[in-house]
Amino acid sequence: MPELRKDPITGRWVIIATDRAKRPADFVRQTVPPRTAKVCPFDYGNEHKTPPELLSYRNTGGRDEQGWRVRVIPNKFPALGIEGELNRQGDGMYDRMNGIGAHEVIIETPDHAATLADMPEKQIEEVFWASKERINDLKKDRRFRYILLYRNHGEAAGASLEHPHSQLIALPIVPERVREEIDGARQFYDFKERCIYCDIIREEGAAGVRLVTETDRFCVIEPYAPRFPFETWILPKRHESHFEDADAATIANLAWVVKTTLRKIDKVLEQPPYNFILHSAPVQDPALAYYHWHLEIIPKLTKVAGFEWGSGFYINPTPPEESAKFLRDAGLG
Amino acid sequence: MPELRKDPITGRWVIIATDRAKRPADFVRQTVPPRTAKVCPFDYGNEHKTPPELLSYRNTGGRDEQGWRVRVIPNKFPALGIEGELNRQGDGMYDRMNGIGAHEVIIETPDHAATLADMPEKQIEEVFWASKERINDLKKDRRFRYILLYRNHGEAAGASLEHPHSQLIALPIVPERVREEIDGARQFYDFKERCIYCDIIREEGAAGVRLVTETDRFCVIEPYAPRFPFETWILPKRHESHFEDADAATIANLAWVVKTTLRKIDKVLEQPPYNFILHSAPVQDPALAYYHWHLEIIPKLTKVAGFEWGSGFYINPTPPEESAKFLRDAGLG
Repeated sequence: MPELRKDPITGRWVIIATDRAKRPADFVRQTVPPRTAKVCPFDYGNEHKTPPELLSYRNTGGRDEQGWRVRVIPNKFPALGIEGELNRQGDGMYDRMNGIGAHEVIIETPDHAATLADMPEKQIEEVFWASKERINDLKKDRRFRYILLYRNHGEAAGASLEHPHSQLIALPIVPERVREEIDGARQFYDFKERCIYCDIIREEGAAGVRLVTETDRFCVIEPYAPRFPFETWILPKRHESHFEDADAATIANLAWVVKTTLRKIDKVLEQPPYNFILHSAPVQDPALAYYHWHLEIIPKLTKVAGFEWGSGFYINPTPPEESAKFLRDAGLG
Repeated sequence: MPELRKDPITGRWVIIATDRAKRPADFVRQTVPPRTAKVCPFDYGNEHKTPPELLSYRNTGGRDEQGWRVRVIPNKFPALGIEGELNRQGDGMYDRMNGIGAHEVIIETPDHAATLADMPEKQIEEVFWASKERINDLKKDRRFRYILLYRNHGEAAGASLEHPHSQLIALPIVPERVREEIDGARQFYDFKERCIYCDIIREEGAAGVRLVTETDRFCVIEPYAPRFPFETWILPKRHESHFEDADAATIANLAWVVKTTLRKIDKVLEQPPYNFILHSAPVQDPALAYYHWHLEIIPKLTKVAGFEWGSGFYINPTPPEESAKFLRDAGLG
């Protein structure tokens, strides 16, 4: 008998197939191919092919020269423009505003062929430091209410350039999914006077069946009502609403946790395409007792598309207890 | 300058790219290939390969024999089971219930190679009649709160069998996207004492820029804040909350409108994969003044995936005014 499960934060029900649960080998594999050398604007020597850098961590060289370890640039084809007024206005019965925002690319390494799973931990740590630094800079602009940090890995997950990079979009609005999550977490807090994510961390830590791995500072779980097979959440154990407030020890441990989790995913699912998305509180809000930043990783394993978008209705062929066991048991040698 | 637009029903903001707007030829084509004869459980002579039929419209033959025009069967691999109790219960801090529901397949024609765009109108009319009849039957079961009618066309849109068919899922819950839409429509009604969809029909009919086609009974538009390029809505002009209450003349005209719209989409986008989803009120609710049934068609043109799922944030490269013009101008010869 399949099961209907409710996500405790958003109230979304999903179907979890149990009878013919899909195991890792049942998914059509779309392994992300190893990267090959070609002319890439993110490689050393091509710094002039990108817009001027906003930030870099370097061994040698000056602005827009070689020698960087991590480099942040404006997206050459931004979805939003940085200059101008929001100019909120009515449009007949509708509402619109100018597409003001920032769209940046974090080039994670000069090594074209690297992946986040095989980079040195120190390198990953610097990527998160650069993200944090950029968010803290962008949030000074009071027009921006939300900053979305995300990573598309592999063409099937929407990556258009193969060189390792993540992206950051600063928005004058809070995206729908985020707003829903924040509203749900606030309702729980109003009722229980506790953070729902802190409750989830305690519950999953004690039960263990959906736990992938944990450290002193982080807990990696398959959520109770995942929309997608092998959907994985990385939660900091200490309550904090804003990622950009994380301290040095947290960022250092996050690098280890992200690397370990991606290595496990790579091993069990054979280097799948994936997206990860940082969920953090709206940047202009003060520290919130009811919201808790975290990272969500979604391997791209299933083909289904518009139906889920259109209905908000998800059928997940792999129970999280099973995917958690596969990931937990994946020896990393 | 890109534009941020707000969907008036759900409050979702989307980015509409205007500078480098994508025209139909800019999308990577994934034309659905013409169907080829092979052993198919939905063809004449293979009636015994499917579960026993629930409904058929026939020229000749008896139950589970050849001679049918439209045939409805239970899905052989249902996402939900029909037998049993819901048995709602807590599970630690979480909530679950048994996966009770119905999952049926509407085989739209015995012609394996047909598409909804090239079928005779009369055939399409019978498909909608069969859907209506099955919904009216299923809603007698008071466990079911929502019935989702949808169609996946082409492998890229999630179709696993190429023979023309749509599907119907009866659920003990209201899916998230639907609930959000209904809540938004109710809020508008509470404030304005008018149905927001009726307002949209009037506004779009008068403005004309996002209008694709219209008849006495239907209005086909590209919505103001579409998530996807060429997202298309078909709205009945007469206010009605439940599709299954539509009268004979409405169903007949719907067949013409759906066929015409899909022919236009096929012409402009070269037979793209697509999903369509019927949005209708929860089946146990009485007729609602604030909700209005409609059909949403989403051609599958872009590859991006988990990012939108994870963030609820959409970047649409084609303004609806442009897609509407392409569809409006598509001569059907």
